[in-house]
This record gives sequence, C-alpha cells and structure tokens, in this order.
Amino acid sequence: MTHKVDVAIIGAGSGGLSAFPQIEPHTQNVAMINAGPYGTTCARVGCMPSKVLIQTASDYHRRTKLDQRGIRHGDQLEVDFAAVMEHVRSLRDRFVKGVMGGTTRRIGERHIQGEARFLDAHRLQVGDQVIEAAQIIIACGSRPMVPDAWRSFSAPVLTSDEIFEVESLPGRIAVMGTGVIGMELGQALARLGFEVTAFGRSGRMAGLTDPALNKCARDVFATELDLVFSYQLDVSEPEPGRIRVAWEDGEREFDAILAAQGRISNVDRLNLAAAGIACDDQGIPLYNPLSMQLESHEHIYIAGDATGRLPILHEASDEGRIAGYNCVHPGTTEFRRREPIAVTFSEPNAAVVGLSHAQLEADGIDFATGSVDFSGQGRALVMGKNAGLLHVYGDRQTGALLGAEILAPSGEHLAHLLSWCMQADLDVFEVLRMPYYHPVVEEGLRTAIRDLAKAIDEDRARQELDVLSDT
Amino acid sequence: MTHKVDVAIIGAGSGGLSAFPQIEPHTQNVAMINAGPYGTTCARVGCMPSKVLIQTASDYHRRTKLDQRGIRHGDQLEVDFAAVMEHVRSLRDRFVKGVMGGTTRRIGERHIQGEARFLDAHRLQVGDQVIEAAQIIIACGSRPMVPDAWRSFSAPVLTSDEIFEVESLPGRIAVMGTGVIGMELGQALARLGFEVTAFGRSGRMAGLTDPALNKCARDVFATELDLVFSYQLDVSEPEPGRIRVAWEDGEREFDAILAAQGRISNVDRLNLAAAGIACDDQGIPLYNPLSMQLESHEHIYIAGDATGRLPILHEASDEGRIAGYNCVHPGTTEFRRREPIAVTFSEPNAAVVGLSHAQLEADGIDFATGSVDFSGQGRALVMGKNAGLLHVYGDRQTGALLGAEILAPSGEHLAHLLSWCMQADLDVFEVLRMPYYHPVVEEGLRTAIRDLAKAIDEDRARQELDVLSDT
Repeated sequence: MTHKVDVAIIGAGSGGLSAFPQIEPHTQNVAMINAGPYGTTCARVGCMPSKVLIQTASDYHRRTKLDQRGIRHGDQLEVDFAAVMEHVRSLRDRFVKGVMGGTTRRIGERHIQGEARFLDAHRLQVGDQVIEAAQIIIACGSRPMVPDAWRSFSAPVLTSDEIFEVESLPGRIAVMGTGVIGMELGQALARLGFEVTAFGRSGRMAGLTDPALNKCARDVFATELDLVFSYQLDVSEPEPGRIRVAWEDGEREFDAILAAQGRISNVDRLNLAAAGIACDDQGIPLYNPLSMQLESHEHIYIAGDATGRLPILHEASDEGRIAGYNCVHPGTTEFRRREPIAVTFSEPNAAVVGLSHAQLEADGIDFATGSVDFSGQGRALVMGKNAGLLHVYGDRQTGALLGAEILAPSGEHLAHLLSWCMQADLDVFEVLRMPYYHPVVEEGLRTAIRDLAKAIDEDRARQELDVLSDT
Repeated sequence: MTHKVDVAIIGAGSGGLSAFPQIEPHTQNVAMINAGPYGTTCARVGCMPSKVLIQTASDYHRRTKLDQRGIRHGDQLEVDFAAVMEHVRSLRDRFVKGVMGGTTRRIGERHIQGEARFLDAHRLQVGDQVIEAAQIIIACGSRPMVPDAWRSFSAPVLTSDEIFEVESLPGRIAVMGTGVIGMELGQALARLGFEVTAFGRSGRMAGLTDPALNKCARDVFATELDLVFSYQLDVSEPEPGRIRVAWEDGEREFDAILAAQGRISNVDRLNLAAAGIACDDQGIPLYNPLSMQLESHEHIYIAGDATGRLPILHEASDEGRIAGYNCVHPGTTEFRRREPIAVTFSEPNAAVVGLSHAQLEADGIDFATGSVDFSGQGRALVMGKNAGLLHVYGDRQTGALLGAEILAPSGEHLAHLLSWCMQADLDVFEVLRMPYYHPVVEEGLRTAIRDLAKAIDEDRARQELDVLSDT
C-alpha cells in the first residue's frame, strides 16, 4: 500500500523536529519516519546527560582546591557512582520529556515508526508501507563510530549511547579518542575516580587545531588522566574481559573501552543509491549548506547530523528550519548561516570559533595571532582555575577578526563573545573599545585582543590602548 | 618651599596610575601625591579580595548541592575562618604587588606622600611642601560611608577597608545596605556560617532597579540570609558590644556591623573652595564626563571614584587615561565612553547594562521588555543554579537594544555579551541571529531576546524565529 504525502521527514531528532513547524502551516500531509528510540541525540545521549555528569565530576574535583582556601575535610567526600548516574538519568529524562512535548505532540499520528529505505527518488519503504513523497528531508542523524572488531569483545565497549545507562563501571577505562566526547567524558570519569587513559593519534585534543593550544591542552589534561598518542594503536582482548592497548613503545590493560572516535551519519542505512543521490567519497549526499538542498535532487533536503559535519544542536535546528522552509516555499532560498562555534565542556573549556587555525593555514590566509596565557590571569587565579591559552586570529591587512581557539576557564562564554563579534563583522580595534569589567576572565580575552591589535598595527594599537577613540 | 611641576596628580590609585603613562612621554616633571596606603582600592580593599572571599564562600556553599548529585559527606566540610582570611590576604597581596609594579616603579621619586589641599587654583599644600602645578588631576578616590554615630560603638563596625584584615568575626552580623557590597559580602558571610541580616531601605538589591528583578532578588537571597527593609532603621548600642537594630515592627541584636551603604568621594578633604572650583550639591566638582575637564577650570581634571559616580575599575582607568591625555595635548578632546556595565558578584550574579529600568522610566522612553526566568533554564538546572530573572529593554520603534537588568547564573558573562551588542549598536533582530550554543545559559538570554523581538514586531519576530534571515 502506498501512502502519498507532501513531505516525508526521515528522522524525529533535532533536525526533523525543527523542520516540522516550518511545514505545518502549509500542509498537514506530512510523514515523520523515525527508527529507534524517540528523543533527540542531544537530550537522550548527547549534550544534556554529558553536561550533568561533567557538572558532578567538577563538583567532586573541587575538593582538591578546598584546603588551601580554608575549607577542611574535602578528603572526606565520596562518590556514590550509582547515585551519580541516577541523577544524570533523572535530569536526562526531564530534558527528553521537554523535547518530546510540543512539536512531537503536534505531529501525533503522522509519526511512522521504522527504518526508511529509498525505493526511488520519491518513494520510501518503511516496514511494509511505501511512502510516496513530493518532498523529502533526510534528517536521520548519526551514531557513534565503533570498529567492528571491538563488537566481539566480552569486556564492556561503551559509547555515549550506553554510558549514561550504566549503574557501575570497572576501574580501568581506555578512552579511545581525544576529541570532544573523549575529553568531556574521559576527564569526568577520571575526576570521579576511575583510572583513565585517553588514546589519540595526532596529538590533537578537544577539537583544537592550533599546535600551541594542543600542547597546552595536553599539559593541562595530563595532570588528571593519562594521555597516549600513537598512529599505531593495537586494541585486543587477549582473554575475556581483559582489554589490551599496545603502541610502539608500550602497552596497557583495561577493564572497559569508551569508544569516542566520533559519530558517523546514518545515511548509509537509507539506500541512497536507489534514488540516484550524488554523494561525496564518504557516502554523504552533496548538498548546498545555505539551502540544505541536495545537488542531485531539487526535492530532497538534508539536515542535522545526517550531513556528517559537526554534530551541533543549534546547527541541526537551523538546518531543519532551512530545509523545512524550502520544502514549502517556491524556489530555493539560501540563508546566511551563523558564525561557527564549537565547544568542549571540559575544564578548562575548549572551543573553536570562526575559522580554526588549521583552516586558516589550509586556506593560505595572511593572519596575525593575539595570545593570552590564563595561568596568571587575575580572576582565573581567584577561581583556582588558572590554566589555559587563548589565540585569536585576525586579518593582517584589515584587522578583521577571523577566528579563535580557546582553552580557558569560562571559555564557553568567551566563545560566544568572540563569535558574536565575528558575526557582527567587528575588527580588532572595535573589540578593544568594548567594556571589560573587573575582575573577569574577559580581561584575559582583552589581553589577547590587545596583542592581536599590536601585531596588526602597532601605532594604531598604541593609540587605542592609551586612550579611547575620539567621539 | 614651592615645587613647580607641569602636572600634579592627586592620588596614586586606579585613576592616577592610568593618567601617568599618558603624561610621561610629554613631560617628566610630574608629581603624584598620595595620602594613605599605596595600592589601589580595587586591589587592596575592593574587587579583588572580595572575589576571593566570594569564591571560597561559593565553594563551601556547594556542599548543599552534592548529596542529590551522588557525592557523599558534604556535611563534613568545615570552615576554618582564619585560614579563609589568610588565603584572601595572600592573593590580595599578590594583586597589590602587581598593581604596585610597572607604573609605580616608573613614577619613583615623583611620588609625594601626604594629603593634598588646594591653596588656590594652581597651588597645593602637601605637608610642609607647596606644589605649584600647571595642570592638576584630581584622582583622590573614595572611602566607605559610615554614619558618625556608629564610630563611638564598642562593637566592631567594619567596612570593606577593615573586613579583609580580620582573623575572626562574631556570630551575628548586621549588614547595613543591600547594594553591591552588602549583597556580595553579606551573602559570602552567610555562606561561611555567620548569622547575617541585611538591612535596606527601598527594597532595591544589588544595584538592580527593575521592580520584578528586585522582587526575584529578594526571594532568592532570602533563602540564604535575612532581609529587612525599612525607611526607619534605628541603630544603637544599648550596652557595650551589643548592637541593636530596630524598625517599625521589629528589632534584632547583633555582635558587629558591616557598613555597606556605599562609598563617598574624598574630594571633601581637598579644600576645593580655595581653588574656586564649582561643585554640585553633593560637593563634587562639575565636570565633562567625555573629557574629564572641570567646568570651572580648564587646567583641572577629575578621574575615578573622586567623581562620586559608580566606583568601577575600568571606568576609573578610562577616566585617568582621558584626563592624562588632555593634560598634555592642546585643546580638549572628548572621548566616547564605553557602554555602561555594573556587576554584583553575588550568586546569582546581578548586573545592570546600558540604561537601567529606572533610567528608562525617568527619561520617559517608550521601551518594550523581553524576559527570561532562569528557574527552569536547561543549563542552569544542570549546574544546580536555576534561579534568577533577566529583563532586556528595547526601543519599541526601532528595535535598538537600550539596556538590561540581570539576575542570573553566569550573569557576569551575559552582561558582557549584552553590553557589547549595545556598544556595537545591534538591534534585537540582529542579536537573534547570533549563534547560541547548547547547552548554555546564553540560551536563556536568547529566550529574553525572542520575547523582546515579539514585543517589538511580532510578524518580523516570527519570520526571524522560524528561519534565519536571507543572505
């Protein structure tokens, strides 16, 4: 039986749920097809539960700072891990419920549970149903990447899909990956008392690309967990329940693996070939990021983690809105995307804003760098969180802010400030004129901005530093 | 003996120290006259030591959130108050040393210790010296306000000048004033275990003027300390060491007073009358805030707390720079001042940015309000700091951001974001298009911005909410 709809949305996650309200005023004849559990990746297994775990780990870690501040018996504090995870799940459930309200309720019977596979460019097979759609939005999300060989291990191999469900964990944990998830969860688990070794390949940490920041990150995180970098990591299970990770000049044993190599798009499950969809060499449909329309098909759009780019909630929501808008409006509208921002909620926070150091180098842009070291920054000292480094990049000719990499206390807030300045097209001298209160970490940012201004135009910087600009 | 100089700076605090580097390249013949201890108000008795005390109080207070998060024995934590204060002083000394380096060293022998008093418009008496100056900068700072009657009490009457020097405090403390200092130190002392009652007059808290925010602030802070508001507070010491505060329908006894009614300018000690300086009805010289020049004398400038306005470090520094610049450059240059920002580092932070609610009302401006309640905000919940309210004000015709009042977790960072948007002249729709990461308190700010956008132009807001703006 074929069910004809105006729009089929594949996936009821952050992308799909944002598309729906765009479409609803124009047509009620929509199908939202969802495989697996409802609730977004973000609320169910991503941003939200990880932030709860990180908060608790940070609260417990704080005991190491108490004695020098005159607060006694911090060493009496104890982690009840089962209770920690219960708290994580209880808040997680609250957030999932929030996501499942509103839009999800409005979608109602137009939800179809099952895996969608393309039959041709307009028809989708879902179980024993065929959906024929005038327009299609691919918002099928992503899943954690796990090497096939590890699936046969009898020791626990956890991903962010499973970690928030556990009641307990064994003592020694190998975190495979030093990116966003590896450093967020790896540091949290180390702080909660597990023996954590994080393994990476290139030496890059927490999404950072600037070599100086990566060095600082390795130094800072190495005070809390072991770090091993090698291009030749060999992961095996010599006997059941015993994981061995070996590299050129060492090996170590573990009781469990946290797989944190990143996420991959679920588009490989959609049978894109049947629809003749043109893909890149990763199997991701080619698309226009300003309209979210596929290059090969005017009536098919893509949104959210399905694109295989940064799995970031607000980007997924924007993409869903753009795809939904274009489904129900004539022509194809291109929208201005927001200034890029990516945050790792480790302590210190790591963040990349605008163009990364690696992108600037790859694009051959003539840029200058302003720097601040947070190890002596006033407010950071007061907080007992004086570690980190921030680099802000500017165009050597125009003084335009181009990007920044951040490893800093309250770095998530500095990332917002900088990305907003970039989106507003402010140059380094304009940012220098902004108010910086005292004593705040933003004063550290000012140090970097001053440094950048001097590197770009020493005379003008001196003038701006000495007095404010004339009215 | 008369000592002739090109510029005399009265006060070696934040204002005077910022003026000096402006002047030095033009003339070495400068006198910097300082009464009392060296080191700025900020570093010695203000911003810095108070932030250290607040950080420790916050760390100790956090124990109340641990059990629900699965961390046990938080109730074992104990405050060693003498050690707390030792830590405060040790960091304080480090910051004072920082301030005393650099510029202070360069000033060297041009420092003159003593109280300056005007003899006429160009001559100052300092001890047995007379300084005759072609230009004068008044940067004599401020002192805490303490009613004369309290000076005879035998119970401790402390101000921010003394509080950081104590080794111990008695149990019951009356905090007189619910402004910035009262709420910062009052909350910190309550959190450290003292029995604190804060007394105010109007019901205004922490510098806020918006009635809704003040109500929220009273509700939030009342969970940690007692609050009493009355225009008829009677403070007496019926017997030595026993302080009584009585009001219309109650009275309470205390062992000590923390005087937190604010700071007053030290200009009353300068004998301004001898120089014929025109003053307002508070005895503060009339001056141009864009040039810092006195209205009555072209060769006299004023900077910092001496102006009797907001005692805020970065403003004092700007004023010193402006005054110094104008002392050594022909003509009188007016400078653009920074967007106003004032922060109370309580928990939640309180802040006023741009025009306050009271100023908007007084000026009869037609403004709309956008609001967010932080009691249910996602990240605030994760942090266990879900309390507060934020109001952002916009011009009903143009959508321009006019000001904001903030009571929020991480409010200090939201205050920077908003003040920077205002300084960059962004309107509410432009701010809506900025990136808001997830999960962050900035998403709470977005709720208020959306609310304001809807209040200003519902159709346009709906368009902006649904999709991003076209490229």
